[in-house]
Amino acid sequence: MTLREYAAVVEEKLDELLPEADKRTPEIGEVPWLLQNAMRYSVMAGGKRLRPAMLLACADMLGAARGEAMLPACALELIHTYSLVHDDLPGMDNDTLRRGRPTNHVVFGEGQAILAGDGLLSLAMELLIENAMAHPANYAGEVLAMNEIIRGAGVSGMVAGQCMDLYCEREGAGGEALLTYIHMNKTARMLISPLRAAAALAGLAPDSEETRALTAYGVKFGLLFQAVDDILDVVGDEKTLGKSVGKDAGSGKLTYATLYGLDGARTRADRLAQEARDSLALFGDRAAFFHGLLDSMAHRVS
Amino acid sequence: MTLREYAAVVEEKLDELLPEADKRTPEIGEVPWLLQNAMRYSVMAGGKRLRPAMLLACADMLGAARGEAMLPACALELIHTYSLVHDDLPGMDNDTLRRGRPTNHVVFGEGQAILAGDGLLSLAMELLIENAMAHPANYAGEVLAMNEIIRGAGVSGMVAGQCMDLYCEREGAGGEALLTYIHMNKTARMLISPLRAAAALAGLAPDSEETRALTAYGVKFGLLFQAVDDILDVVGDEKTLGKSVGKDAGSGKLTYATLYGLDGARTRADRLAQEARDSLALFGDRAAFFHGLLDSMAHRVS
Repeated sequence: MTLREYAAVVEEKLDELLPEADKRTPEIGEVPWLLQNAMRYSVMAGGKRLRPAMLLACADMLGAARGEAMLPACALELIHTYSLVHDDLPGMDNDTLRRGRPTNHVVFGEGQAILAGDGLLSLAMELLIENAMAHPANYAGEVLAMNEIIRGAGVSGMVAGQCMDLYCEREGAGGEALLTYIHMNKTARMLISPLRAAAALAGLAPDSEETRALTAYGVKFGLLFQAVDDILDVVGDEKTLGKSVGKDAGSGKLTYATLYGLDGARTRADRLAQEARDSLALFGDRAAFFHGLLDSMAHRVS
Repeated sequence: MTLREYAAVVEEKLDELLPEADKRTPEIGEVPWLLQNAMRYSVMAGGKRLRPAMLLACADMLGAARGEAMLPACALELIHTYSLVHDDLPGMDNDTLRRGRPTNHVVFGEGQAILAGDGLLSLAMELLIENAMAHPANYAGEVLAMNEIIRGAGVSGMVAGQCMDLYCEREGAGGEALLTYIHMNKTARMLISPLRAAAALAGLAPDSEETRALTAYGVKFGLLFQAVDDILDVVGDEKTLGKSVGKDAGSGKLTYATLYGLDGARTRADRLAQEARDSLALFGDRAAFFHGLLDSMAHRVS
């Protein structure tokens, strides 16, 4: 299955989990219409569904049951969406548009957008727990998968990366060690956890050869993903503004391209892609989906 | 043990979980100093530690292991704190003081306060998962306890109550059904879940006689807790402003006191207290802690 095919499956499940709700006084135990519609607005706003697709593709590759992988996959997308909703808030990036549509707080107001983000993170956890309770024969694997996803998003994962990213932006702090910390946590962790969670659901130990190879792929792919974004930022700026490229290329934001210039960033991206490819050797032809992701990254910057 | 004694035990554990951190570039896998200190600031700002104390007291009453109840108890306090940090934000209640100290966003900035709240909810979940992984012999009870806590805080629980509370405040909506929904979810659910989580850890089924009795107590105590708050709001207003009490008593906020007047609210509070007391019959003398909580509520409004 291709990324697009996995995305369609995830999209259908998300739509089922968060249907459009009519305005009415909620019953005890019901999700209120306003919260549901605010969450739905941002979840159904498009996107590649990359993280859930990676979890499903990895589960398929390792022979885990699709039925057991679907809710964890959706949980990943809810967490990714919560991070975008909170990121766009006036107190953070203050963005009014995302994917061409008004951001959540523009439509629902700042207070409801904060709660929609809180709700999406909560709902992600609720889905993970529901999944564990539905598969008691695999409690160990379920709890381990939960651990990978929640820790990847948590205080030494995604939230940690956002905290340091905001700190650098506001305080002008920098340096390569901090940059690597931010990229690893803000971006890579949520691309590693789909793979490690799928491995856990498939019954693989966290230190098994397969899980280690998948982790290596996730780290390199995650850093590559961020590197490509940063390169496109600079190339975009060059094209639109005719800016010179060098130490201060891009918007002044701390990136590898601003640290080492565009050529340095491109060399690093090529190296990361090769290392990611190498780490898939163990899986042979079964890893076609993950080779495909690397091809599409190369295509973006070519 | 008294509420104060349980609170001291919880306080010590929270202090250990979130020690003051020195400013330095974080290592991969580490919580960044800034996030940790922002979370610590609000967690260690005092408070009665009512929710964790209720979980520990209930675990003691039912004979669950204290060692297995401690992290879920702390998770409850982290969730309670996250809700306060986000509630105080400019986009929500816009409060600059809580318990006599500047609120989180006043000290750390709005963006970091949003992330501190996100971090506290994430960390709560991380602790619950850590606890489950540390007690694999009781996976079923652990996952069930997790379910009670996370659902109580989630999109059909606390977040739902906050969403409708904010909606009523901004849109001027009201009515008794909506008021009950808000009180049940915003306040009562997080006072029910400590009891149901403790029962789950003790190996009791969600529909056991004990769990049903504890739930009944939690519902009545939770509604009483909110009722007492609302009565004190009105009495406070009367004392300080000499306001007349009736349909529009208090600050115009939708409460039972504004719906039925102070006498009506007091009669209702007495009834809730009696019903809460009755639901403890099953536990006899072992429920002294929970009778004590009702006594302290009666004391507040006498």
